[in-house]
Amino acid sequence: MAVNLTAKSAKELPVIDGIQIYVGQAGIKYENKNDITLMVLAPSAQVAGVFTRNRFCAAPVHVCKEHLQAKQGVRAIIINTGNANAGTGQHGRDDAKNICTAVAQQICCDANQVLPFSTGVILEPLPASKIITALSKVKPVHWDVAASAIMTTDTVPKAATRQITVDGKKISVTGIAKGAGMIRPNMATMLSFIATDADIEAETLSRWVKEIADKSFNCVTVDGDTSTNDSFIIIATGKSGLQQINDDNTEQAIAVKNALSEVALELATAIVRDGEGATKFITIQVNAAKTQEEARKIGYTIAHSPLVKTAFFASDANLGRLLCAIGNSGIEDLDTDKIAMFLDNVLVAENGGRAELYKEEDGARIMKKEEITVRVELQRGNERASIYTCDLSHDYVSINADYRS
Amino acid sequence: MAVNLTAKSAKELPVIDGIQIYVGQAGIKYENKNDITLMVLAPSAQVAGVFTRNRFCAAPVHVCKEHLQAKQGVRAIIINTGNANAGTGQHGRDDAKNICTAVAQQICCDANQVLPFSTGVILEPLPASKIITALSKVKPVHWDVAASAIMTTDTVPKAATRQITVDGKKISVTGIAKGAGMIRPNMATMLSFIATDADIEAETLSRWVKEIADKSFNCVTVDGDTSTNDSFIIIATGKSGLQQINDDNTEQAIAVKNALSEVALELATAIVRDGEGATKFITIQVNAAKTQEEARKIGYTIAHSPLVKTAFFASDANLGRLLCAIGNSGIEDLDTDKIAMFLDNVLVAENGGRAELYKEEDGARIMKKEEITVRVELQRGNERASIYTCDLSHDYVSINADYRS
Repeated sequence: MAVNLTAKSAKELPVIDGIQIYVGQAGIKYENKNDITLMVLAPSAQVAGVFTRNRFCAAPVHVCKEHLQAKQGVRAIIINTGNANAGTGQHGRDDAKNICTAVAQQICCDANQVLPFSTGVILEPLPASKIITALSKVKPVHWDVAASAIMTTDTVPKAATRQITVDGKKISVTGIAKGAGMIRPNMATMLSFIATDADIEAETLSRWVKEIADKSFNCVTVDGDTSTNDSFIIIATGKSGLQQINDDNTEQAIAVKNALSEVALELATAIVRDGEGATKFITIQVNAAKTQEEARKIGYTIAHSPLVKTAFFASDANLGRLLCAIGNSGIEDLDTDKIAMFLDNVLVAENGGRAELYKEEDGARIMKKEEITVRVELQRGNERASIYTCDLSHDYVSINADYRS
Repeated sequence: MAVNLTAKSAKELPVIDGIQIYVGQAGIKYENKNDITLMVLAPSAQVAGVFTRNRFCAAPVHVCKEHLQAKQGVRAIIINTGNANAGTGQHGRDDAKNICTAVAQQICCDANQVLPFSTGVILEPLPASKIITALSKVKPVHWDVAASAIMTTDTVPKAATRQITVDGKKISVTGIAKGAGMIRPNMATMLSFIATDADIEAETLSRWVKEIADKSFNCVTVDGDTSTNDSFIIIATGKSGLQQINDDNTEQAIAVKNALSEVALELATAIVRDGEGATKFITIQVNAAKTQEEARKIGYTIAHSPLVKTAFFASDANLGRLLCAIGNSGIEDLDTDKIAMFLDNVLVAENGGRAELYKEEDGARIMKKEEITVRVELQRGNERASIYTCDLSHDYVSINADYRS
């Protein structure tokens, strides 16, 4: 069902020196399934992350934030599927910490050098002892296996990579992600982990992770919901042998940030391509806005309109719905007569209504495609944003209505 | 398909002295269908309205606002279905004005004493001449016929009424509405017209119409979209023979405002009951909030979550989705440990997670009902709000995906 998305093989995903990946079977929700993933990091690694803004955020998110604040350096990442450890109160936080302690004992570090991540059912106690028992039996694997191990109801494992050469030395970026709605039915969470062997100074990395999230994971939407567990982590192992990056303006910094951004965007859009019931991948470009915030607001209003999403599903060039969504985005001083709207390269609306030369068959031709770009030209300023989404299909309702019942 | 909603007969809907209603067949979209409705008002009538905040608002909305600002008094209301006259630019505004001129000639008043309303397809030119021709052939009818004549894809005509006695004299309130999503597929618009024979001073009525809209039409949502044509009008003909109302505190004022509010809420919730594909009617009460705005924000976040809506459709007591929506409503300082949530009278969540005594079968029993109340107790303050919505079903996708294709 995923729109133009295929799994990547081990060969396609470069190893990142300074990270060893393991998976194991704890039997959290299913037997004979890899449901825990352990990443062990070299002591040189810098780690930074951004987390869900949902106020009901999960226990592991609390613990991740606390451990990152301790600034002792991160030596391991432990991820489980099958249970989100969300809506579990103090007991859930204790469970997450006990798992960190067990990992720490195994690899000889402090418990607050371990970051825990969970994804799966909300409101059920985490079977922490199963995870702790399984830790001693994990097996070393490559990124492709980890991409599968962190899946819940994703239909395709999601991985992306870039390699660049700076000063004759190769730098690699490899990342994985999971998620198929911003929230899955009871199976919460978008998780993504990107690693590079570049050496990036802590504060720079902290800033980058936010900037990169804003242009990737914060630009996608399936159903407008933000999960209790959403997390995005960048790891810089520093093993490439190149100089440490501590500002944005060197050739190396630009190249590495660019590679990280590309991998993040590829993973973020992979989540949309694998969106629940998705049959189409839609890019919404809002240009010539006064501020980036208003461009994003209009993009998201279009992307979240169930009427727009069902029109894409039906391949119906129902332009009134798109214009209506623009008008509905809460920009009080928007002059609708100035707006031009394109479907791919077809001008469909201008001067507050249908474009004079627009023909229904041109719109219909574009709407039949699997990948469509809606471009909105506001003629108000110089800012812009792109939002990525999918259509709303019968399968979305089926997946979400039938999941538990 | 509508949830506990039936049509009202002529006998059930009291005549409002000072309003004569006519319908006619202009053949705008279909032949042999009443598609224009004319209300002629006594010169004593006061009229006030609230209109869509969509920036792509329709031509008749522009003209209504202009004519109300002229303050010459409103003598007629003309409504057409089959075409929304939206996204039609200057030409559309000219069409709406020409129709007002034709109505004015027929009933001997000024064109700016006529308010025009349109509902139907967006982005197509209004066949104004058909409407003007049909005006001379309209026939007098009762409220029930008007309720049917303003329908587009509504499945049930929507009317409501209250009668009260003040100082031994009877005052009547009768209203009609149309709408089945905040937007119908291409068939835009929520319209509502409520009339009373009470005598209400202009500024009081102006204030009331906003306050009443905020507690009725601004508390319902089917799919979160606001149409280009949404309009709500109150007419006070002043024919009851009772004293003019010019403040809020007399016994008469309280009784009349209350009756108007009840009719508005009944019509607003009727729109939700007839929501596209609706199988359930959901009331979301948010209590003990710091501000009314935050209560509404939380209510709407729950009501707009596709995951919550599909869970209701599936009768699935998937409480994580409800909590997740609360956490996702953007209230930065929300203490989730303090929140209690009830499904009807069953306590389902407290202390940041599942309530200790909650049993899945209790939740399942409530979720099977056709009418369900979600009550959220925030323990933050004294404000509250109720939001009314419906579930998201396969039929919603079918109706919206298959409409034009």
